[in-house]
Amino acid sequence: MSIMPPDVRQAVADLMTEYCYRVDRLEDGNAELLALFTSDAVCDFSPIGLPEMTTREAIKGFYDSVFEDMTHHFHMIANHRPESWDGTVAVMTAYVMGLGRSSDGNTVDVKVRYRMECVEEGGRWKIRRYTISPGMPLPGSLGEIHGER
Amino acid sequence: MSIMPPDVRQAVADLMTEYCYRVDRLEDGNAELLALFTSDAVCDFSPIGLPEMTTREAIKGFYDSVFEDMTHHFHMIANHRPESWDGTVAVMTAYVMGLGRSSDGNTVDVKVRYRMECVEEGGRWKIRRYTISPGMPLPGSLGEIHGER
Amino acid sequence: MSIMPPDVRQAVADLMTEYCYRVDRLEDGNAELLALFTSDAVCDFSPIGLPEMTTREAIKGFYDSVFEDMTHHFHMIANHRPESWDGTVAVMTAYVMGLGRSSDGNTVDVKVRYRMECVEEGGRWKIRRYTISPGMPLPGSLGEIHGER
Repeated sequence: MSIMPPDVRQAVADLMTEYCYRVDRLEDGNAELLALFTSDAVCDFSPIGLPEMTTREAIKGFYDSVFEDMTHHFHMIANHRPESWDGTVAVMTAYVMGLGRSSDGNTVDVKVRYRMECVEEGGRWKIRRYTISPGMPLPGSLGEIHGER
Repeated sequence: MSIMPPDVRQAVADLMTEYCYRVDRLEDGNAELLALFTSDAVCDFSPIGLPEMTTREAIKGFYDSVFEDMTHHFHMIANHRPESWDGTVAVMTAYVMGLGRSSDGNTVDVKVRYRMECVEEGGRWKIRRYTISPGMPLPGSLGEIHGER
Repeated sequence: MSIMPPDVRQAVADLMTEYCYRVDRLEDGNAELLALFTSDAVCDFSPIGLPEMTTREAIKGFYDSVFEDMTHHFHMIANHRPESWDGTVAVMTAYVMGLGRSSDGNTVDVKVRYRMECVEEGGRWKIRRYTISPGMPLPGSLGEIHGER
């Protein structure tokens, strides 16, 4: 395992920031957001009590609900830390304060960690595996808003 | 439109951070804060229900009130994203959690986005146009504290 | 006083982030956290009403209590600003939102500034002096949770 080169580190940190911008832009559908993931990406939100999604369809279904239900989103990301780099796969973690408001007036405020495994595909960095784990205790509204229904 | 060079990106991100430090230092007047703006700078806070200010005098007047009224400020900035670079003008957006407390005990807590158009002037990067737009729904106390009176 | 070189700036910012990760990992003791400090490090938390600690034993004692009492920690750091660099000592400040929950169910939420004086020791950057100062007014629970008992 070698040190993550500065350009890879910047690209992956930018990818994580871009994820926040796109998940917060609750307009015009989620195609731009989904374009940040590889076609075989896995999203494991089970550490915070939400689904693990192992197919493109499952991921799209999750974000379809998010974009349909939420009127406001604000995901602030910091504490970027390179975890590993093997020459192909870059793993980075970061802290996120995630705020949201749903159309029925419910609100959610989570303090979590993102871990993203990223690879370059056709000249663009993409997310291959995305895990969310808890920072502070999670509010009950998280399951109400984003849980399986 | 070309890619923003790393040194410009760093300088503009630093300028946005410096804005936060100076707007949070509610002592010794606001001359150091105002020095971050070009003489013809425009501040458009209308997307969050506050004034658009198109003259130096108007900007100074706004911050005079802020520095007079507020006892505490805390502006945490993250999610820096280069938007454009034409060789002269660098545009960057970022997310800000802005907290404040006024001398009458009122408090404000906003989650917003800053967009700053920046140019180099006499060897220093300065803000030419500064726009604030909402992230999460804004509290009523924002207008009470910073609105026109 | 010269400009802090980019590699020093990155190393010190990473050290501050690492401090957050390690103070938030409330498992397996605090040896990894303490390893971030020089043997003669001083922690001055008196600006926020907590102790000033001038010996390794005092610092260890403070963090022993923290790791014993707290069930959750979340320290989000941003607004990194290089303050000075003399060729040996790098000083950087940053803003921190520090959240915690103790085993008796008490919670703490502080908005503070960290100032760290850092030096390289045996190829690793370490904290020689660490000061916390208030951003927003501090909650009473801060002293209840972390104060001297």
